[in-house]
Amino acid sequence: MSEAALFPRIALIGFGLIGGSIARGAKAQGLAGEIVATARSSATRARVRELGIADRVVETNAEAVKDADLVILSIPVGACGPVAEEIAPHLKRGAIVSDVGSVKSAVVRDMAPYLPDNVHFVPAHPVAGTENSGPDSGFAELFANRWCILTPPAGADEAAVEKLAAFWRALGANVETMTPEHHDLVLAVTSHLPHLIAYTIVSTAEELEGVTRSEVLKFSAGGFRDFTRIAASDPTMWRDVFLNNKDAVLEMLGEFQEDLSKLTRAIRRGDGETLFDHFTRTRAIRRGIVDIGQDEAAADFGRRPAPLNKALSN
Amino acid sequence: MSEAALFPRIALIGFGLIGGSIARGAKAQGLAGEIVATARSSATRARVRELGIADRVVETNAEAVKDADLVILSIPVGACGPVAEEIAPHLKRGAIVSDVGSVKSAVVRDMAPYLPDNVHFVPAHPVAGTENSGPDSGFAELFANRWCILTPPAGADEAAVEKLAAFWRALGANVETMTPEHHDLVLAVTSHLPHLIAYTIVSTAEELEGVTRSEVLKFSAGGFRDFTRIAASDPTMWRDVFLNNKDAVLEMLGEFQEDLSKLTRAIRRGDGETLFDHFTRTRAIRRGIVDIGQDEAAADFGRRPAPLNKALSN
Repeated sequence: MSEAALFPRIALIGFGLIGGSIARGAKAQGLAGEIVATARSSATRARVRELGIADRVVETNAEAVKDADLVILSIPVGACGPVAEEIAPHLKRGAIVSDVGSVKSAVVRDMAPYLPDNVHFVPAHPVAGTENSGPDSGFAELFANRWCILTPPAGADEAAVEKLAAFWRALGANVETMTPEHHDLVLAVTSHLPHLIAYTIVSTAEELEGVTRSEVLKFSAGGFRDFTRIAASDPTMWRDVFLNNKDAVLEMLGEFQEDLSKLTRAIRRGDGETLFDHFTRTRAIRRGIVDIGQDEAAADFGRRPAPLNKALSN
Repeated sequence: MSEAALFPRIALIGFGLIGGSIARGAKAQGLAGEIVATARSSATRARVRELGIADRVVETNAEAVKDADLVILSIPVGACGPVAEEIAPHLKRGAIVSDVGSVKSAVVRDMAPYLPDNVHFVPAHPVAGTENSGPDSGFAELFANRWCILTPPAGADEAAVEKLAAFWRALGANVETMTPEHHDLVLAVTSHLPHLIAYTIVSTAEELEGVTRSEVLKFSAGGFRDFTRIAASDPTMWRDVFLNNKDAVLEMLGEFQEDLSKLTRAIRRGDGETLFDHFTRTRAIRRGIVDIGQDEAAADFGRRPAPLNKALSN
């Protein structure tokens, strides 16, 4: 066991983009004496064995959590309750139990009732990702300079919370603590609403009369392309997000609809001043995101520049 | 004059992202004997002189088009009519007059009445861009493997259309021809609607009660970030797009609203099956875009991976 290891044994339940990135990062940073992994599908477990990132791959969740000092569920939000029920009798006394779900109130509601008093339940949400999923999609640097939000319950053991925070910081993340309810409101606007809108517009484009699918694909560089990236995210994960953060998402949708109505009205009336003022204000937000390092100032146009062919085709 | 030069003299009116990229590409490919540029603001003209990309920078549009064999307006759509009126008396007999506007019916409506019969008017729209603007933002490879749509009027001179097509192909673009009306419908969905939605959601996020601006920025990696990129585009250009493609944009907004209502209803009712089916279908569109090279399969998470710091902070 490495001197730097925070936990003698870490159990990872689920090995998609997030679980796989935690495993790679924890291994790269030497944060665990032993990493034990499991996944629901036998195909994923076989692939994790091939990849050789986990020290051990086991068949069941119960086996995975045995003697583990840190247990992290990296599974769709809707599966957290049943898995909590399943692992509860097998948890080590004093273990930290956490997750990575994009919704926190529902995860607390579903998991807490099953967990014994002698473990520390500290829900977490690393706000990081790509549009890819599956055991091959993860990478050790996914969390670098991203934020991980912890939502410990009132009265949580401070040492346990700090230890989990240290783990996420060692994976490169900045850590912030808030209530589950506030988390769900913030993420409804910075993540859930954008995904819902992207999923919507991509299907709108697919079902139009008068515009072919081939045209939509060919001319996607005009802006549509960026939405398809988001709308390629894992369907199970996102179904569970919307089912489990319904109220906050519906609230944000209401706000969005009001703003869209204002712009629609400006277009219908030919009110150029309102449009110009609006489009100028939104630029400032973009600058703020680049300033704090959550995106690059470098222009993105969908792929690295292709070299120009010197030979003219005419 | 290079042997490969398609045009002895090209006049570029406007030197933003698109005009500047045309100049750089035409120079790199030797497409012009001479490139003459102008821009409305003296600051831009001074900067173009400093950059040294154009062979000559002149003060007025009339001066720019004198003896030019190809004239390209790379200016906001709303300015095309007045500039056509201004340059009309100074155009060389047999010149090709074109533009790069994101809307085509309005450009034809506004420019055609002013142009003399002895020039060839071939409107064009290169579907390429980044969120940056200004004379420094262009680059020669912007159009490589992108599509340029030509919308020549009925009865247009075939040799002139083909010559402009050859010019765009030499800049790396694929060329397609369609009517202005069809162009405006296709672009309303692949470009104008996505921009409108992005502009909307960014302002929604800015004006919320209960979520601070700092939180919106910090947790933007959850999806919101990608919208801010689009919503940082040039406000004047986009004001003019919406004012000049009102009907098609409002039609697409209606379709979008119907689809959003369906998903909203599924969320309110907890209908996971509808959500899952929908999110699965949109993945296929993404694959189509990657397959035809309009985006990369490589995951995007906002910046190149930062290296992990080996030292633990605890």
